[in-house]
Amino acid sequence: MLQKTPVRPVYLDANATTRLDPLALEAMLPFLKGEFGNPSSLHGHGQPAKAVLGRARAAVAALIGAEESEIVFTSGGTEANNAAILSALATQEGRDEIVTSAVEHPAVLALCAHLAQSRGIKVHVIPVDGCGRLDMEAYRAALGPKTALASIMWANNETGTLFPVEELADLAHEAGALFHTDAVQAAGRVPVRLSAVAADFLSLSAHKFHGPKGVGALFVRKGTAFSPLIRGGKQERGRRAGTENVAGIAGLGAAASLAAWHLLTDSDRIAGLRDRLEAGIAELFPHATVLGDTSNRLPNTASIAFDKVDGEGLLVLLAQMGVAVSGGSACASGMMEPSHVLKAMKLKTDLLFGAVRFSLSRDNDAEDIERALAALPAAMDKLCGPTPFRRAVEEAAAALHPAPRASLRKVA
Amino acid sequence: MLQKTPVRPVYLDANATTRLDPLALEAMLPFLKGEFGNPSSLHGHGQPAKAVLGRARAAVAALIGAEESEIVFTSGGTEANNAAILSALATQEGRDEIVTSAVEHPAVLALCAHLAQSRGIKVHVIPVDGCGRLDMEAYRAALGPKTALASIMWANNETGTLFPVEELADLAHEAGALFHTDAVQAAGRVPVRLSAVAADFLSLSAHKFHGPKGVGALFVRKGTAFSPLIRGGKQERGRRAGTENVAGIAGLGAAASLAAWHLLTDSDRIAGLRDRLEAGIAELFPHATVLGDTSNRLPNTASIAFDKVDGEGLLVLLAQMGVAVSGGSACASGMMEPSHVLKAMKLKTDLLFGAVRFSLSRDNDAEDIERALAALPAAMDKLCGPTPFRRAVEEAAAALHPAPRASLRKVA
Repeated sequence: MLQKTPVRPVYLDANATTRLDPLALEAMLPFLKGEFGNPSSLHGHGQPAKAVLGRARAAVAALIGAEESEIVFTSGGTEANNAAILSALATQEGRDEIVTSAVEHPAVLALCAHLAQSRGIKVHVIPVDGCGRLDMEAYRAALGPKTALASIMWANNETGTLFPVEELADLAHEAGALFHTDAVQAAGRVPVRLSAVAADFLSLSAHKFHGPKGVGALFVRKGTAFSPLIRGGKQERGRRAGTENVAGIAGLGAAASLAAWHLLTDSDRIAGLRDRLEAGIAELFPHATVLGDTSNRLPNTASIAFDKVDGEGLLVLLAQMGVAVSGGSACASGMMEPSHVLKAMKLKTDLLFGAVRFSLSRDNDAEDIERALAALPAAMDKLCGPTPFRRAVEEAAAALHPAPRASLRKVA
Repeated sequence: MLQKTPVRPVYLDANATTRLDPLALEAMLPFLKGEFGNPSSLHGHGQPAKAVLGRARAAVAALIGAEESEIVFTSGGTEANNAAILSALATQEGRDEIVTSAVEHPAVLALCAHLAQSRGIKVHVIPVDGCGRLDMEAYRAALGPKTALASIMWANNETGTLFPVEELADLAHEAGALFHTDAVQAAGRVPVRLSAVAADFLSLSAHKFHGPKGVGALFVRKGTAFSPLIRGGKQERGRRAGTENVAGIAGLGAAASLAAWHLLTDSDRIAGLRDRLEAGIAELFPHATVLGDTSNRLPNTASIAFDKVDGEGLLVLLAQMGVAVSGGSACASGMMEPSHVLKAMKLKTDLLFGAVRFSLSRDNDAEDIERALAALPAAMDKLCGPTPFRRAVEEAAAALHPAPRASLRKVA
């Protein structure tokens, strides 16, 4: 049943990170070679760097329907999330509560937990239902005159579930609170229009849409008070100090422009590949469950729970077969406790440990999907093979269903 | 007197930023091309990234005489400075004072000013003398049972003056306080040995020693309590969240190794070039003053005050002639107010606006220095030419000293 590692690896882990687009690298290279000037310098060496910061700012603003002056470059999504939350607390006297969801990224939840513990900030963690949808009643009830910020992600990293950010922003504003959305998984994957969504802050990260790692942006709506996370020089109009990551920002800008284009050209194709993957899995493993809000999610994400299967073990075996997937958020992986997102969705224990996230990008094609589908039964066999529990289940299953791969179907 | 722009520009602004070493770029490129994995991923795509983080950590540790586990990668020197200061306040109940110097970088001073204003933190700003040397009596007197942190730079960015960090760290510890040093201008330029200097925190930035912009490191001594500035995932052993800037860190690591080598091979040569520059300037402009502690400073920095000259104007003219220098720290440039460093040194007004910083790197050679020396009189002529004040001075001077360029000598 063992399968040889394919020559070209199949990468289905785009929600962890994506390949840097060669065109984004092209945009970076001048600033890693001849154009090394500091954008703050008065002499000419800094001018190409200063100019590319402007171009990148325009490209990022265009991707999310913002104005250039509303874009603050950061070292990534985590910094952007931290900056938004801390700023909202620092700028609003008398408001010291945060409303967030149980399925946010650790970049939001870990900071909120720290603020609760160290500063006594009251954090309302809004639950989700079994499909990962926010409890709107609880959200409404948590908002109040003490709310500094509601921070709800645009799309969940593990299930792809989309949140009703337009409504959530309006509700936060009705309570006089600011609204932040972590759009790290949404930007470049679904249309993000800040003209329609009245968010005050939005975070994005270049490496989730084929830009470089270590660079991102925080949108700060014009007129929203802002208190910087990192202080020093006057870079980013005083909103984020430190010599700019010029090459990284150039790459972010190029990646944003490319993402805006591919959003138009590749979204349906990616959703089609995802659907084909899910259909194939359903055929192979009828007891597998698609997690999240399947009617309202990112086009690239398939979160599948295999019943009574060790998902971490499965992904390691798939990796050995050249198929890269994830068993939860990359930040949580390496730890053996189940994902906080799936726990919040109250998955039953049999499914909780069997979740595997397949996340696609424009780099994927139909062959990738077929190869993943070919690898899955082999990996499952290997995973299930040696344990006495598995053998007992398989024997019982074989007695009932003598068809090929029946054991797998039964087990899954 | 106008001079054509030379073919190869003369870059003497290394304290603002340096050219990325081509070997550092070579170290980065694999992570901008094929190896795009997330170091946190369990599958193989993340392994090369994870491995390079380890190599870079070892290289940075070696550059400063630290252990690998003591290195936390950051987005640069400013973030590292902010993290150290805020951590020292967060981890020491009952200690809420900071001792720092009047000549620190804005990455320290702007944060301290904010903490004083927003949180009532008492900040003792220790003065310097006319050579930029710290007032040791005032430093000793400011330290006490309330001191959370003393933060004194290893070397000043504008004058190159070195601070007695070994003694300063010991004095801070005698008061029970932590000690941080901003070594952004020192790392890679002078030996930095954390085995000899008992600092608890040290900040460095890759782009000051021929690494990429947007990446740096904070040294956190083993056993020193640390509260992260940026929270979320478990990266950097929980000390700095966010997907790592893998390519940037690879470049930082290579740059650190190269810097350690060039420190041995190029320091004397660079100091020789700097001395030749200063000798040439002294000959051309006998009234020019070398600023800082000339007996104890970085080998690469020449901070020169030209008497009654508009330093900003001079650097713009030099830039037009292809010679890049700075008129203060890059972060302060663009603003017409004089550098806080030179103000702290109580320079008389005639010199305060006439300071120009020449900062060299291993990329410079003797030809650069001769071309800078050739450009200076021409730039000065152009700068001094048009104003009625200049003309009056020149006429008076010409009457007294009819020798060629006498006017320049007199003016300067």
